[in-house]
Amino acid sequence: MRATDIIMKKRGTVINPKGQELSKEELEFLIKGYVAREIPEYQISAWLMAVYFNGMTFSETANLTEVMLHSGDLIDFSKMNLSGPFVDKHSTGGVGDKISLPLAPIVAACGVKVPMMSGRALGHTGGTLDKLESIEGYNVNLSKEKFASIIEQVGFAMTGQTKQIVPADRLLYALRDVTATVESIPLITGSILSKKIAEGSQALVFDVKYGTGAFMKTAEDAELLAESLVKTTQQMGRKASALITNMNTPLGYKTGNFLEIEETLDCLENIGPKDVMELTYALAVQMILLAEKTDNKEEALAMCKKAVESGKAMELFLKNVELQGGNVKKLLEQRNNRRSQFYRKIKASQDGFIKIDAYQCGLAGIHLGVGRNVTTEKVCADAGFILHKTEGNFVKKDETIMEVFGKNEECFENAIPLLNSAITYSNEEIKKQPLILKGI
Amino acid sequence: MRATDIIMKKRGTVINPKGQELSKEELEFLIKGYVAREIPEYQISAWLMAVYFNGMTFSETANLTEVMLHSGDLIDFSKMNLSGPFVDKHSTGGVGDKISLPLAPIVAACGVKVPMMSGRALGHTGGTLDKLESIEGYNVNLSKEKFASIIEQVGFAMTGQTKQIVPADRLLYALRDVTATVESIPLITGSILSKKIAEGSQALVFDVKYGTGAFMKTAEDAELLAESLVKTTQQMGRKASALITNMNTPLGYKTGNFLEIEETLDCLENIGPKDVMELTYALAVQMILLAEKTDNKEEALAMCKKAVESGKAMELFLKNVELQGGNVKKLLEQRNNRRSQFYRKIKASQDGFIKIDAYQCGLAGIHLGVGRNVTTEKVCADAGFILHKTEGNFVKKDETIMEVFGKNEECFENAIPLLNSAITYSNEEIKKQPLILKGI
Repeated sequence: MRATDIIMKKRGTVINPKGQELSKEELEFLIKGYVAREIPEYQISAWLMAVYFNGMTFSETANLTEVMLHSGDLIDFSKMNLSGPFVDKHSTGGVGDKISLPLAPIVAACGVKVPMMSGRALGHTGGTLDKLESIEGYNVNLSKEKFASIIEQVGFAMTGQTKQIVPADRLLYALRDVTATVESIPLITGSILSKKIAEGSQALVFDVKYGTGAFMKTAEDAELLAESLVKTTQQMGRKASALITNMNTPLGYKTGNFLEIEETLDCLENIGPKDVMELTYALAVQMILLAEKTDNKEEALAMCKKAVESGKAMELFLKNVELQGGNVKKLLEQRNNRRSQFYRKIKASQDGFIKIDAYQCGLAGIHLGVGRNVTTEKVCADAGFILHKTEGNFVKKDETIMEVFGKNEECFENAIPLLNSAITYSNEEIKKQPLILKGI
Repeated sequence: MRATDIIMKKRGTVINPKGQELSKEELEFLIKGYVAREIPEYQISAWLMAVYFNGMTFSETANLTEVMLHSGDLIDFSKMNLSGPFVDKHSTGGVGDKISLPLAPIVAACGVKVPMMSGRALGHTGGTLDKLESIEGYNVNLSKEKFASIIEQVGFAMTGQTKQIVPADRLLYALRDVTATVESIPLITGSILSKKIAEGSQALVFDVKYGTGAFMKTAEDAELLAESLVKTTQQMGRKASALITNMNTPLGYKTGNFLEIEETLDCLENIGPKDVMELTYALAVQMILLAEKTDNKEEALAMCKKAVESGKAMELFLKNVELQGGNVKKLLEQRNNRRSQFYRKIKASQDGFIKIDAYQCGLAGIHLGVGRNVTTEKVCADAGFILHKTEGNFVKKDETIMEVFGKNEECFENAIPLLNSAITYSNEEIKKQPLILKGI
């Protein structure tokens, strides 16, 4: 086997320009060889670009995922005397997207185990790990054993990806980033799935977002990715479903690290924003159905609502905070009281019905300190913004639309113009886009 | 400027999948950065693959060529007090293709200067430098000054490419070879043209071959390449034309290193094979027209024939051999007498009209020692084959079709079956394909 021949097979010829499906052995040769540094990066990047152009079948993507996943450690809960069902959710990322935080305890309260490995903020989208770390003491670097033990005690645990999990993805991701091969549905699928399956999930629910604040800008592209994720997961013998959801405007009222922890507590007290509650319940229902706790959607929803209303979900969340080293007492004291001293208000520049653009808010978030441009940057726990008005609301000139918290005084210079330009005004009522476009 | 952005511009997006034309500055950034080792190979290979898929406009190809060409030394004859017109020919390579050898002295005899930089045998195709080196003493590593001085004295000189000429091409070519990005018309164009223009040519004639023994398998592909070569050369302010010629069967009777030198002498004595004479004259006419020695095709052909019949072309050839260090006396003594001691005959296995496949003959040539698989292999000056019958001839069973000369006894084991399978027999007369399909 020669890497050049494999690249050419995917690249195709004049007669067969779409190339051919690579076999599992060929993909293994490439990926294993790459991880072992036997196949040079310049061949891998040529192959990545050929995949960008010619795509992959679902079974080919499943084989790629399988090969990537076996490049490192796998978590097998059954070997750790832990029984499932293990179901996780993956979101393609957005602005104000804290859904994982209320979702995991709600689903856990319904008897589903949630082994959640999350990422950090990058670019305009936030990261679950950064949010959790805004809780004093909260540890997101759990050992395999600790991860399993916390899942056993409270039904869910939240950790970062260790270096031993899917090293192939870390290498490939870094290479895709500098070779303009990020936007390839099979490559995105392999990257997401390999990590999710390595963490021990038996079934997966995907929240694939579209819109200005999402990775996929159009609903059509989001649907293609959702289909690829679901079909590839199924091809790998696991259950999956997906929701295509709107990310044109920030989710909920609060965007920021500690601010989103606060909104999580609101949700678990049943006083969360309507959109966050709606999406959390919708994803929770999917997870409960995949876990076969019931085959009835209404019943699943009733289970979720009961988990919240009974206080069980909140109890599990606070118990998780404690088990992961977080200071629960301080968390509850700081709730609604902990704010950055660097503060601004955004007021309406005119009367009108407003729209708030997620992408520009997300970019402002980078300046404020919610997110970061490069992985080595630090985030600020207390930065962010609170919406007093949301998309579709009518505002009077000078009414406060949002409160803004920055990491320092200087950051407002860039953040405030971005937030102002995120808001547009209209004389006519705005037809609200549905939050959940469809299920797959 | 960032390499990733340039790659993405060429790669395109969902909305504009064919990408955009890169500017000269962007191409310069990539190529200069690559040669200086500031841009890593993995980014260049991703760009190469994007070019493979999305192509380049002629002006973009011209800019790439310009940038490549300036990565090293340029020969400027005017600075060396040498006046033109300087015209060269480039062939895309074939089996038995010794046209450069009789062509250069014929054109030189007509008052055109031919600064010829040639290559070596690789794969199934032969190399002019290897053929010339079969002449005892012949030196193909001329200094710039020596190159110019020989052109001044006899109108043409033949040398290899120095390391200082277009280093970008050497790097890119090696990278394309291992990343399955060789077969890209703009990249092939840049590679060929940058070298030809760096050597000081003001006008170029291309012999673009199609068929089993050619790089381009179909006439359509050859035409695309020819069009790209001619249009790109013109875009660079130089004159150009091309012939699309057939390479389904070996050219002439003799294929091999010294054997082709012999056939060159035959041509210069006006007793060369019909096909070699036809193609040599056709290309010579193109060169004379581009050099503006006349604007009349018939007149140009008459000039060529006179150059041969008068003995002037032969005189120049032998003078060139002498000036480049070759032993003329020995060359003439060895002509038709110097043969490898390892010898076989290929006889007809049945009666019939025959076809002889160029590609299989070329592959046999590698085994015999005419060519090489990798650039570090040595060739054998005396290896090769002489056709006694050519495509379209009728043969009786056991008649000799060819004489075969090998570098050793062992080589026949692989070479003979290949040569046998190169010959096919038919009961019906074979319609001869035209040697020259069209001009561009």
